[in-house]
Amino acid sequence: MSGTIRIGIIGYGNVGKAVEQAIGQNPDMEIFGIFSRRDPAAITSAGKGRLFHIEEVKAHVDDIDVAILCGGSATDLPTQGPEFAKLFNTVDSYDTHARIPEYFAAVDLAAKKTGKTAVISTGWDPGLFSLMRVIEEAVLPNGTAYTFWGPGVSQGHSDAIRRVEGVADARQYTVPIESAVERVRAGEAPALTTREKHLRDCYVVAREGADLGKIEETIKSMPYYFDEYDTKISFISPEEMTAHHSAMPHGGFVMRTGKTGDGARQSIEFALKLGSNPGFTAAVLIAYARAAYRLNREGRVGAHTVFDIAPGYLSLRSAAELRAGQL
Amino acid sequence: MSGTIRIGIIGYGNVGKAVEQAIGQNPDMEIFGIFSRRDPAAITSAGKGRLFHIEEVKAHVDDIDVAILCGGSATDLPTQGPEFAKLFNTVDSYDTHARIPEYFAAVDLAAKKTGKTAVISTGWDPGLFSLMRVIEEAVLPNGTAYTFWGPGVSQGHSDAIRRVEGVADARQYTVPIESAVERVRAGEAPALTTREKHLRDCYVVAREGADLGKIEETIKSMPYYFDEYDTKISFISPEEMTAHHSAMPHGGFVMRTGKTGDGARQSIEFALKLGSNPGFTAAVLIAYARAAYRLNREGRVGAHTVFDIAPGYLSLRSAAELRAGQL
Repeated sequence: MSGTIRIGIIGYGNVGKAVEQAIGQNPDMEIFGIFSRRDPAAITSAGKGRLFHIEEVKAHVDDIDVAILCGGSATDLPTQGPEFAKLFNTVDSYDTHARIPEYFAAVDLAAKKTGKTAVISTGWDPGLFSLMRVIEEAVLPNGTAYTFWGPGVSQGHSDAIRRVEGVADARQYTVPIESAVERVRAGEAPALTTREKHLRDCYVVAREGADLGKIEETIKSMPYYFDEYDTKISFISPEEMTAHHSAMPHGGFVMRTGKTGDGARQSIEFALKLGSNPGFTAAVLIAYARAAYRLNREGRVGAHTVFDIAPGYLSLRSAAELRAGQL
Repeated sequence: MSGTIRIGIIGYGNVGKAVEQAIGQNPDMEIFGIFSRRDPAAITSAGKGRLFHIEEVKAHVDDIDVAILCGGSATDLPTQGPEFAKLFNTVDSYDTHARIPEYFAAVDLAAKKTGKTAVISTGWDPGLFSLMRVIEEAVLPNGTAYTFWGPGVSQGHSDAIRRVEGVADARQYTVPIESAVERVRAGEAPALTTREKHLRDCYVVAREGADLGKIEETIKSMPYYFDEYDTKISFISPEEMTAHHSAMPHGGFVMRTGKTGDGARQSIEFALKLGSNPGFTAAVLIAYARAAYRLNREGRVGAHTVFDIAPGYLSLRSAAELRAGQL
């Protein structure tokens, strides 16, 4: 269909499936296909997308306007990001914060070589939360910023627990500590340690005969992931895991409190309550796919972040419509 | 100072004063001067800005990088906006929603004639709230949007009461109705009438001998301003007005709840709690003045709204710094 943005999904995990399910909410888009490393015959599609093996993607350069990269940040995107940015306009949710500058540089170089546009590191954090941190700081330079995450499932922390010997399955909830949140909302601008901001609440299915005490100790002392936090561990049955911990809720908020030049206290808060983390991440990726498509048509090639993209590019509405109806 | 953005303030009411007081929080800016219709000798500056009569502004075209227009939307900006956009890069908080398209067109034409950049209709609503309405809709196309204002002083409604016969002074607070807010936050997506969303809470100082019953009736039946709302009126003394109603707090929130493609419920909320409405409006105007300056240096002339400006332009930090530290 003329004018429709044809989307390719590369990587078919939770986020890839959620992108597929959400495209239908966007009348300006359609899915061309889904590309996975797995055998297409062995995959059940969550929606109407055609399944291809990822090796076939090069044959479809002219069929796809924007490729949404849904591979993992740790293993897939460092190579896939630059590789696919040469072939397609791309959007991804690369979230290894410390390595974003080098990832940006690699994607930027690749995209510019062939005149493509890439949007990296979008979703909600990095993504909308990043956007809010920057807007809030620009408006309240004399202030204190806070980001709280949760309550919600952290995939990274759940995976870390699953790698512990004797663990069959695990789910880790990141929980903001209410007393800290209250102090921040009251405008106290407290200095908070890592331990004072979030609690790590873990549900673990142990293998038969495993040493529960040792599992607990291993988790609690895991550097970076758990050692700086108060960590709560509950051992549950596989049935309880399936019954009560299958959803992937998440959320959190970005807040800044400060004083403007007239001495007045001001507070800005951006809060998300997400029934499904991959579902929301997918929704943000799709909005930025629209932006990538438009930027490319304007000749704005290379890598971009949420900071580089005027919000009007995300909207289905024209600039004139936005001015008339949304200001 | 080389590289410093030299600001002119045109109009010296509450917002103009707040801009003057806030410039010092921004190390990349300095005030060149303040331009008022009143006799400069008769005005006491709230800060360090030099005072000029507005007639002198044309003589300072080369001294000012961005003029922040702080005149009123109803009377001043419709003529001042296009007039000053010919002379300077400008920023304003024009908020007569229904007339924004024609205002945009007039400012755009004027600014393009002389290669200037104008940012119109910024502040918090229109401004940051508008931005959030558009981002939230783009991310959750299948959803319901709400904007609640307050609790806070509405200047327009306070002025409307002051024009009623027998009224010496008045302050009107717009108050979101808590039960409606709760239903929205709970994700019920209720259909709400004007009356169900906000209460109008009025504090009135009557002139001696005035007919209080008639004042009350006149206010409550005032079309558009009050007739569609539940309006509460309290008569108070001039002393009570000064003691308890001198601050100009405001705030509110923009919220959208909806379902993503996977069927999950999602909610996005952007909330402001403002100790001073003019102080916060000024802070937003200043951040967009930075953007106007940068856009102009890149040759992006004409009128812009918050939808047209990439958030990175608001920040003191460079794009590389933002990528490294804020994503």
